[in-house]
Amino acid sequence: MPAAGPSSEPIIPTVPLTAQMRDSLRAIVGAKGLIEDEHGKQPFVTDWRGLLVGRAGAVVRPGSTEEVAQVVRLCHDHGIAIVPQGGNTGLMGGATPWPAHTGIVLSLGRMNRVLELDPTGYTMTVEAGCVLQTLQETASRHDRFLPLSLGAQGSCMIGGNLSTNAGGVQVLRYGNARHLVLGLEVVLPSGEVWDGLRALKKDNTGYDLKHLFMGAEGTLGIITKAVLKLWPAPKDVCTAWLAIRDPRAALEILSEAHSASEDNVGSCELMSRSAIDMVLRHIPGVQDPLRAETPWYLLLEWSSARARRDGAEGMSEKMEQFLADQLEAGRVLDAVIAQTGHQSHNMWRIRESVAEASRAEGPGLSYDVSVAISRIPEFIDLGLKAVLDILPSIRPYPLGHIGDGNLHFSFMAPVGMDQQTLTQYKAAITRAVNDLVTSMDGSISAEHGIGIDKLDELSHYRSKTELDIMRTIKRALDPQNIMNPGKVLRL
Amino acid sequence: MPAAGPSSEPIIPTVPLTAQMRDSLRAIVGAKGLIEDEHGKQPFVTDWRGLLVGRAGAVVRPGSTEEVAQVVRLCHDHGIAIVPQGGNTGLMGGATPWPAHTGIVLSLGRMNRVLELDPTGYTMTVEAGCVLQTLQETASRHDRFLPLSLGAQGSCMIGGNLSTNAGGVQVLRYGNARHLVLGLEVVLPSGEVWDGLRALKKDNTGYDLKHLFMGAEGTLGIITKAVLKLWPAPKDVCTAWLAIRDPRAALEILSEAHSASEDNVGSCELMSRSAIDMVLRHIPGVQDPLRAETPWYLLLEWSSARARRDGAEGMSEKMEQFLADQLEAGRVLDAVIAQTGHQSHNMWRIRESVAEASRAEGPGLSYDVSVAISRIPEFIDLGLKAVLDILPSIRPYPLGHIGDGNLHFSFMAPVGMDQQTLTQYKAAITRAVNDLVTSMDGSISAEHGIGIDKLDELSHYRSKTELDIMRTIKRALDPQNIMNPGKVLRL
Repeated sequence: MPAAGPSSEPIIPTVPLTAQMRDSLRAIVGAKGLIEDEHGKQPFVTDWRGLLVGRAGAVVRPGSTEEVAQVVRLCHDHGIAIVPQGGNTGLMGGATPWPAHTGIVLSLGRMNRVLELDPTGYTMTVEAGCVLQTLQETASRHDRFLPLSLGAQGSCMIGGNLSTNAGGVQVLRYGNARHLVLGLEVVLPSGEVWDGLRALKKDNTGYDLKHLFMGAEGTLGIITKAVLKLWPAPKDVCTAWLAIRDPRAALEILSEAHSASEDNVGSCELMSRSAIDMVLRHIPGVQDPLRAETPWYLLLEWSSARARRDGAEGMSEKMEQFLADQLEAGRVLDAVIAQTGHQSHNMWRIRESVAEASRAEGPGLSYDVSVAISRIPEFIDLGLKAVLDILPSIRPYPLGHIGDGNLHFSFMAPVGMDQQTLTQYKAAITRAVNDLVTSMDGSISAEHGIGIDKLDELSHYRSKTELDIMRTIKRALDPQNIMNPGKVLRL
Repeated sequence: MPAAGPSSEPIIPTVPLTAQMRDSLRAIVGAKGLIEDEHGKQPFVTDWRGLLVGRAGAVVRPGSTEEVAQVVRLCHDHGIAIVPQGGNTGLMGGATPWPAHTGIVLSLGRMNRVLELDPTGYTMTVEAGCVLQTLQETASRHDRFLPLSLGAQGSCMIGGNLSTNAGGVQVLRYGNARHLVLGLEVVLPSGEVWDGLRALKKDNTGYDLKHLFMGAEGTLGIITKAVLKLWPAPKDVCTAWLAIRDPRAALEILSEAHSASEDNVGSCELMSRSAIDMVLRHIPGVQDPLRAETPWYLLLEWSSARARRDGAEGMSEKMEQFLADQLEAGRVLDAVIAQTGHQSHNMWRIRESVAEASRAEGPGLSYDVSVAISRIPEFIDLGLKAVLDILPSIRPYPLGHIGDGNLHFSFMAPVGMDQQTLTQYKAAITRAVNDLVTSMDGSISAEHGIGIDKLDELSHYRSKTELDIMRTIKRALDPQNIMNPGKVLRL
């Protein structure tokens, strides 16, 4: 079992693009929709981390579902492999072709129209290539809220978000990307179009196909359009920074926050002191909201869609009352409530700068894992012990979306250790972490998916029965294995 | 295209149970777990409406997942068909065997243990045969709330609820049954057990298999266990009865209620005056909460998990303020807020007694349809016109879960018309309603499913592409077609 990245390349179709095929593709998408030169293809065959570099016969950029369908049908008829791609911001290489890939990258970027926004029905119908942040802003202009929110939102595209069932910082309240979807349009591996673009909250007519395509990372078909659910825009937001007793206290605080906030907990992010200190070391302009005698902190945000009214209790009054109760219960040691937008922005900046700070810090390791929420404290205890047993001087800085049971279980290299030396420990540490996750019925990839990077880990940790069901579905829907081959599953 | 119920029996496996097979089944489940006499089998082969009567070689009642797996493996090895059954309360015949069925009914009723309740993690792990109401009560004893709530809750079982993706009166806020599930254990058509019983909010490791089994009505496997999500118990509930301008006003009221209640709208049920009057005619002890010059009423309930505090604004103060605004906007003509538990119970009793009252009223027709929420008024207008064009003296009493876009589009026979005469109009009316639903991108079965009753309607109204994907999945996972054959899909 390898530490990360597969041990060998999976078998994928390698039918090359002929000159005639290229002509046919050009006839479908136009000269501007076909990229054939190496320089032009380069950003589409490289993952944004720069870790994986693949190849492609051409990059094809269709402008409509009909064009996508024609391109896929052409590929289907000739056995040409297709790598669907949105904003190419994934962390597992799911949108990056393998080096042996001779087929096409199919980029959805030109399909970027918002087709409908229905404020009364709280829905928005969009094309797959819309940039997430554009959609957030569009919803906001209609006094509505699209909850999906994550670091890459300025460049990731909604089709990719749905194909990978993206997570982010609003999952606690609104769910993963798949929970925000009412309907989908999908181009199947045969080139047929499945029109499931229904704006229905209830529809019990046969198998729920949309959930099959979401999270499949483009291996079963290409999502071309979606109907998204919207929520009322937040009007009264209260952000607090809590020094807490320990991770168990975080759980107990969250458990009680649901009712105290009237089910309005937006985010609940656990941070270790070491993660905070790392941010303070590397990110200019960030202030420490609170320093207390504890290694554990919590960013807690409550938000209500109801504007504050004079004389009525708002979110901050409810939060104050709640924090007083939690201080008395000994779970909270100290706390500050953001009084200004600047203060709240500073708190969020700490949380969101961890990735950037960790790159500045130097070599490190990070695992995106989940367990049942109430087992988080146990996982942290056992996980830290297991990793420190292997490399006692490694510096942990755990943090995570505790309300989702999702930890970014992260470590800085020991002071002075270079990447090459750290890599020698990586396989053992990865195995220890993933073995523990699996023994606790957790997930080795909570939100980042499988892609290329975790191909072997999935096949190592999932049961044969589960892998067999997935392979059976994949083979049934894509018998030629042309749709994003060699991702998620090794067939 | 038939009015209801399929035109002909689908082809299903008819391998009979041999004496040796019966011995093997008895060896797995014990003598008490095997019902072979006609009298004993009768309740399991008849649907609870009494409309469908099927046959079975035996009824098998396993007491554990291992027993279910052994029974299914035995059937798989001999090509024997299996009809999985929970509380047998479905409305579409999904749990009733066909008359040609020679295999078994597999009843989950003995698997009725709550395996774990985690109040901090807000989850509950249960066996498929638990009665829904028992689970609601169990959650309630731990100050937690299981939102799934429907008419049959005293006898339906959670496995059936999940297999049919049940709806009910809390969907607006909490979603359908599938949204309440974190993990599943399923016995596959091969007899293998898929252990997906994970209590994870985030898990992006390959295809989401659980959503495939939910809503499949037992045609892809047998759900044996589930991890359910829980919510905080409601502590401050406000129920109101509104006389409203028209269905469009209902939408606008709901649209604004989300923010006014701080996203705490629990239910929003549209009722026509004729539905209310029908209940008042037949259900003793029910009082009319409000009579106004309008045919449209709304039952609106807001509920918060935060207990009322002295001096603080509670749900009823927020509701009062909201109703005043809506009166001023002309959407609400008059309204009452329930001041006592008795008053609120009376309002709910009207809504929940419609089915019973309609049976007392005599012959009728009812369609369980959905459209995009904002198209509900248009659907009501066009649908009433289409049906009245066919039978001008028919008496409509539309009602529905308007927040889900789900109408129970219902009609009493014209005064004095008997069932037989009404049946002569049924095919034309059903076609008119379902054609309209389909032309508006709606669903011909919003919450009740397909089962036997809508087998032909599904194949008439769904695209060939969609039916082909479903058939491909069914054939791949159940190549012998032994798992609830002839339901949902005609292969």
